[in-house]
Amino acid sequence: MSGARLAFSSRGNALIGQAMFQVLDGARRLEESGVKILHLELGNPRLPPPPQIVAATIAALQKGDVGYTYSAGLPALRQAIASRYNVRHHCAVGEKHVVISPANFLIGQFLDLCCDRGDRVAFFTPAFPTYWAAAAHIGLEVVPVPLDPKRRYELTHVEIDAALAARPRAIVVNSPNNPTGAVYARAALDYLADCCETAGIWLLADETYGEIAYGAAFHTLAKKRLPHVVVMSSFSKIFAIPGFRMGYAIAHPAVADKLIQSLSTQLSCLSAFTQQGCVAGLKVIDRYAADLRDRFRGINAAISDLINRSNLLRCTAPAAGFYLFVDISSLSDNDLEFCQRLLEEQHVAIMPGRSFGAAYAHHVRLATCGRSEEVQEGVTRLMDLARQLAPAMCA
Amino acid sequence: MSGARLAFSSRGNALIGQAMFQVLDGARRLEESGVKILHLELGNPRLPPPPQIVAATIAALQKGDVGYTYSAGLPALRQAIASRYNVRHHCAVGEKHVVISPANFLIGQFLDLCCDRGDRVAFFTPAFPTYWAAAAHIGLEVVPVPLDPKRRYELTHVEIDAALAARPRAIVVNSPNNPTGAVYARAALDYLADCCETAGIWLLADETYGEIAYGAAFHTLAKKRLPHVVVMSSFSKIFAIPGFRMGYAIAHPAVADKLIQSLSTQLSCLSAFTQQGCVAGLKVIDRYAADLRDRFRGINAAISDLINRSNLLRCTAPAAGFYLFVDISSLSDNDLEFCQRLLEEQHVAIMPGRSFGAAYAHHVRLATCGRSEEVQEGVTRLMDLARQLAPAMCA
Repeated sequence: MSGARLAFSSRGNALIGQAMFQVLDGARRLEESGVKILHLELGNPRLPPPPQIVAATIAALQKGDVGYTYSAGLPALRQAIASRYNVRHHCAVGEKHVVISPANFLIGQFLDLCCDRGDRVAFFTPAFPTYWAAAAHIGLEVVPVPLDPKRRYELTHVEIDAALAARPRAIVVNSPNNPTGAVYARAALDYLADCCETAGIWLLADETYGEIAYGAAFHTLAKKRLPHVVVMSSFSKIFAIPGFRMGYAIAHPAVADKLIQSLSTQLSCLSAFTQQGCVAGLKVIDRYAADLRDRFRGINAAISDLINRSNLLRCTAPAAGFYLFVDISSLSDNDLEFCQRLLEEQHVAIMPGRSFGAAYAHHVRLATCGRSEEVQEGVTRLMDLARQLAPAMCA
Repeated sequence: MSGARLAFSSRGNALIGQAMFQVLDGARRLEESGVKILHLELGNPRLPPPPQIVAATIAALQKGDVGYTYSAGLPALRQAIASRYNVRHHCAVGEKHVVISPANFLIGQFLDLCCDRGDRVAFFTPAFPTYWAAAAHIGLEVVPVPLDPKRRYELTHVEIDAALAARPRAIVVNSPNNPTGAVYARAALDYLADCCETAGIWLLADETYGEIAYGAAFHTLAKKRLPHVVVMSSFSKIFAIPGFRMGYAIAHPAVADKLIQSLSTQLSCLSAFTQQGCVAGLKVIDRYAADLRDRFRGINAAISDLINRSNLLRCTAPAAGFYLFVDISSLSDNDLEFCQRLLEEQHVAIMPGRSFGAAYAHHVRLATCGRSEEVQEGVTRLMDLARQLAPAMCA
């Protein structure tokens, strides 16, 4: 059979691959040929999740909890999340504000519910690859608003005003940030949210790494309870369970209802047993999150120190999460080539900077959430390649 | 906070609720007040799934298989499905043709990849509610092509030619059918598929109930290997695990790649542990499916016999699946009122016919896959209501 005449829709044609997958595909081919690859490319935590989550999921499976459930999510999980925001963040969130959904799906659904084809959307860059992929799929015009690496990629009134001046239909803000590890100042986030609400601009606040902020304190925008502001987060990172595909939004009830209709139309519902697992996880989140913060504070400080002392590569020490956004411009302005070479010669997979915006082809991102001996060895090999590429500087 | 000024996108506004949920919401309110409701509304099998599935899922969880995996699905599951089609249906399906996805998601993604806003899509009616909801969401014009109840809702050249004459961008065909239980003749399906391929019309063949055909033999359209024909199915019904949210498509590699890009953009990937469960399930599918066929053949024959002997309600004895599409026109032309009354007076939940197309407001659908004593009691109460509504005929 031939596929030559297949005519897809505009949205079908607008699906873009991600540059990252060129590296991943190469990594898989090498692994299939027997080569051991060190994985520093994905934010796929290689820590054991809280045992309570696995135990509760298994208990629900054994009880036969394998039928359909509510499109909005299990009431027990929605209530547990609402209660968490009440206790931890002192904000009056109720079950009706909470929608359970895969976090990645929420990004696309937020943009799809709020923006029409051809509308503008502003991202502060570097920005998480799914934002770009979702915007391309929907046919949005992206206005990238670059953050200043000299200011540690912090969000200031300068960038906020630039984003607003573009008169977008929606803005996406991600603090704590992937890939920079910056935690934006509360005053800046509040200013952004207030301006959006006043102007009727939709704002998605992706707070996936909120519980893993080990530097500056983290404040959720859910506290402001503004109708145009949708807060989202994920259990993937904080519980080391990306395979559960579980996250949530906190939104005005009218927006939550739209998200629920979208979930109901496209996914019917999520698994009840994995949601039961997350209910159990929320009971131990404080202890587990504290462990994660301790772990990544140490690892990231050590690695960013090593990188910066090399005088070959540069990065900002992150204040949250488990990524390092590394400037390779003194060695290369082609991240893909650099990643390819690191993979083929050193057997280390990392992510090309252009996944976070076309302007970042002289950056790469390292994920430090893998097994620690793999991460350390991966960074050692990265530095080996860096020295090879800059013999004069090292002499 | 007020949501009055919230302006959603066209697609956001086009999300429709489902009439079914009016009944479901009523059922939940009654249950919360302590009333026991008999559930004959959803195709939510209340049978234990094959224990091998639960055991393999638990084993994968215990092994820590909770990370990201391939967007296209686990290679082991794609291969197992391909092998099943080779052995059971003698068709040359390979891993590259198989995409793992929630089945409900595939319906929307198929339409979204193939059709642009304003395009026409043809459904043979009555048709499964998700088709209507997905078409409305995308902004498609639906051409309903009614099947003839006097011919047991079979698909013939008459309806196929009518669908083609509408010159749609896509057609959806569902055999074995939900809600009628009809299994379409192989010659008719082949004719439909060939005509679509020649005309460049996309065809989604929803074969979710293929393994539960206990009357006429079932033949998959995957066998024809036509680029414009996408076959889909689900593990929800055949393994009684709707909560796993797991199904698959079989498609031309170019179309499979598009579906994978869409999955990757919107969902990243599915859980690996539930996919491991389905791999184990495929090893025992023949035995489990034979049990299901025996069970539903008997239940459905008995119930449809009871209904037709009443001379108040009418239905076609299904040849597959576990639904009965019941004509209530001698008693009511308002399915919603009828369902509401059955719920409030008899505490039985069933689905209004209009969920399957606006022309079916004098029909209701019963699902017979619940616990058998509940199903039998539910049907008894349905007949009680029917007799109340038609005292003269019963005198």
